[in-house]
Amino acid sequence: NVDKIAILPGDGIGPEVTREAVKILQTLSEIDSTFQMETKEFNWNSDYYLEHGRMMPEDGLDQLKDFDAILFGAIGDYRVPDSVTIWNLILPIRKHFQQYVNFRPVKLLRGMESPLKQDNPIDFVIIRENSEGEYTDSGGNMFHGETREMAIQNTVMTRQGITQIAEFAYQYAREHGLTKVTNATKSNVVVHAMSFWDRMVEEIADKNKDIAYEKYYIDALAAYFVQRPKSFEVVLASNLFGDILSDLGSAIVGGLGLAPSGNINPSGEFPSMFEAVHGSAPDIAGKGIANPMAQIWSAALMLEHLGRRDLHDAVLTAMEEVLEEKKVLTPDIGGTASTVEIGDVIAGKLKKI
Amino acid sequence: NVDKIAILPGDGIGPEVTREAVKILQTLSEIDSTFQMETKEFNWNSDYYLEHGRMMPEDGLDQLKDFDAILFGAIGDYRVPDSVTIWNLILPIRKHFQQYVNFRPVKLLRGMESPLKQDNPIDFVIIRENSEGEYTDSGGNMFHGETREMAIQNTVMTRQGITQIAEFAYQYAREHGLTKVTNATKSNVVVHAMSFWDRMVEEIADKNKDIAYEKYYIDALAAYFVQRPKSFEVVLASNLFGDILSDLGSAIVGGLGLAPSGNINPSGEFPSMFEAVHGSAPDIAGKGIANPMAQIWSAALMLEHLGRRDLHDAVLTAMEEVLEEKKVLTPDIGGTASTVEIGDVIAGKLKKI
Ligand SMILES: CC(C)[C@H](C(=O)O)[C@@H](O)C(=O)O
Ligand SMILES: CC(C)[C@H](C(=O)O)[C@@H](O)C(=O)O
Repeated sequence: NVDKIAILPGDGIGPEVTREAVKILQTLSEIDSTFQMETKEFNWNSDYYLEHGRMMPEDGLDQLKDFDAILFGAIGDYRVPDSVTIWNLILPIRKHFQQYVNFRPVKLLRGMESPLKQDNPIDFVIIRENSEGEYTDSGGNMFHGETREMAIQNTVMTRQGITQIAEFAYQYAREHGLTKVTNATKSNVVVHAMSFWDRMVEEIADKNKDIAYEKYYIDALAAYFVQRPKSFEVVLASNLFGDILSDLGSAIVGGLGLAPSGNINPSGEFPSMFEAVHGSAPDIAGKGIANPMAQIWSAALMLEHLGRRDLHDAVLTAMEEVLEEKKVLTPDIGGTASTVEIGDVIAGKLKKI
Repeated sequence: NVDKIAILPGDGIGPEVTREAVKILQTLSEIDSTFQMETKEFNWNSDYYLEHGRMMPEDGLDQLKDFDAILFGAIGDYRVPDSVTIWNLILPIRKHFQQYVNFRPVKLLRGMESPLKQDNPIDFVIIRENSEGEYTDSGGNMFHGETREMAIQNTVMTRQGITQIAEFAYQYAREHGLTKVTNATKSNVVVHAMSFWDRMVEEIADKNKDIAYEKYYIDALAAYFVQRPKSFEVVLASNLFGDILSDLGSAIVGGLGLAPSGNINPSGEFPSMFEAVHGSAPDIAGKGIANPMAQIWSAALMLEHLGRRDLHDAVLTAMEEVLEEKKVLTPDIGGTASTVEIGDVIAGKLKKI
């Protein structure tokens, strides 16, 4: 079968890093005849917005729905408010396609150095709720310009939303032989939403008693990411907490140049979307120096999602070899190589297997 | 004049570390006749709750209101839900006494080692909004037990609340010769509350153009705390973001054993409250091994607030000497000394000046 992949390069360095990720996918399809793909590129980004007044066509989601997966670059441009780009492209895709899992590995690859002195193997995953919670547009502003001006924003959590992400976390732990799930909460203060979150999570934890369960307040947990990152296996977090923890997680394993993610619809009813955690980085866009490894790794997660764990592993091994050799690295991790050179050297490794 | 100080030791290690902080205050009043204090202790904690069904007497806030300052230990006990202890003692004090500034230094003391490889001098402050924002009990639960069960929680931000904390941040920067304020936001997603936050903060930034202004999304900022902490001077954050960032901040300078805080009412109309950032740590309570330095430092911040910057500095210097000598340290930072021994050795240093 042929995997149909939608490519949304986006803004800034998005197209640069996505091009290298596609290069890797193409290389794989050349060397392994059992992997066949068909890609289609969509130019929905800030330029598109400035021309058409919207981030994607009216039937945009419909155009994407029959793909097997989406590879997404990054979005964000100084000419368009971030809230516009985000609420009209990336969040609609996450929400409409019920990609309720945001899957983010925090893994110190071989050859990488952590900024932490104690860089014992760091290898865990953050499983972030991706469809509700703090990410709602429910709320508003009142009394504009008056001294009593105020804004209200609602966090909305549902039994379905929390239960399905908690079940995914436990299932993931089970399938990967992991022994513990860590719940990120703030139920001591965010009493309505997060106490509910805890209660729902603990209903699922109770059904999985063979897997250890622990719960930390998000403030303490952020500190533990620095103090004892190797103590984590699966970290389960709400949308906002998972967002914060995963950037922090990327920092302890070498930065956003190496942080991949998958927005996953576990039922397979709709396509899942894979994207580097980093943004469009307008400051270095066009210079050809962005690190494409996060996006290449995201493409590897996509391959795993498409049933090709073997290809995922091959890509990771090739990346680790490049990192260990320390000859071809982008500036963010201490080298002088270009985005394209990273793609080429990883592709070269793959061709040799 | 005699400074009237209310002492609320609280639960767990709260009383242990607070006793050492009071020891330091007493030592100072013995060696410096211009510093005179009168303390009164309040036993409002979880034991009190189990006996009386409330965390403090009905007129508790009234009993506190005429003190010059409050020294608070820590609260939390496995027999009482955290939400009860917090929403009935610490948050009412913060809110009722309009302690709208939560002031948290992130400073690598001399003698301390950061867990970061790149431990260049880390020295900045987090100025956290402390009266509104994500810390509201507005919201609720619906459809209990049904599949459509849900919870809603409102973040509430006001012009007054944001403006006054932003003004404090700029004034602090100005008075301390600092050159930059960093705004922690998530206005790209939390569109109503955080865009309003940004707009209000930027109104104040515009009036202080000689001080540089920068803005980062909270996810990126958490990563930067690990990657380039020395680039910050004043970090301005909402209640929840400041909570997360300050625990993370403590981690990069040696842990919660060394993280002090002040809940400040800048007008002086009501007492301000000083407390270590750490909690009641039930796991080590009663063992006499808790590090009292965070609480001693908090007492020093109290002294500065009471107009005695000289005494604040003397305490910090004594602490740094102890840390540099590395002879008397608690287990959290690699020693074997007891809580009491730390208090004694710091008091001893102070007596020698
Ligand atoms: C761009 C933004 C909407 C996004 C988020 O907050 O989810 C990003 O930070 C991420 O982590 O994918
Ligand atoms: C105990 C809790 C209410 C508190 C907070 O979240 O503010 C604590 O974490 C802190 O940082 O002082």
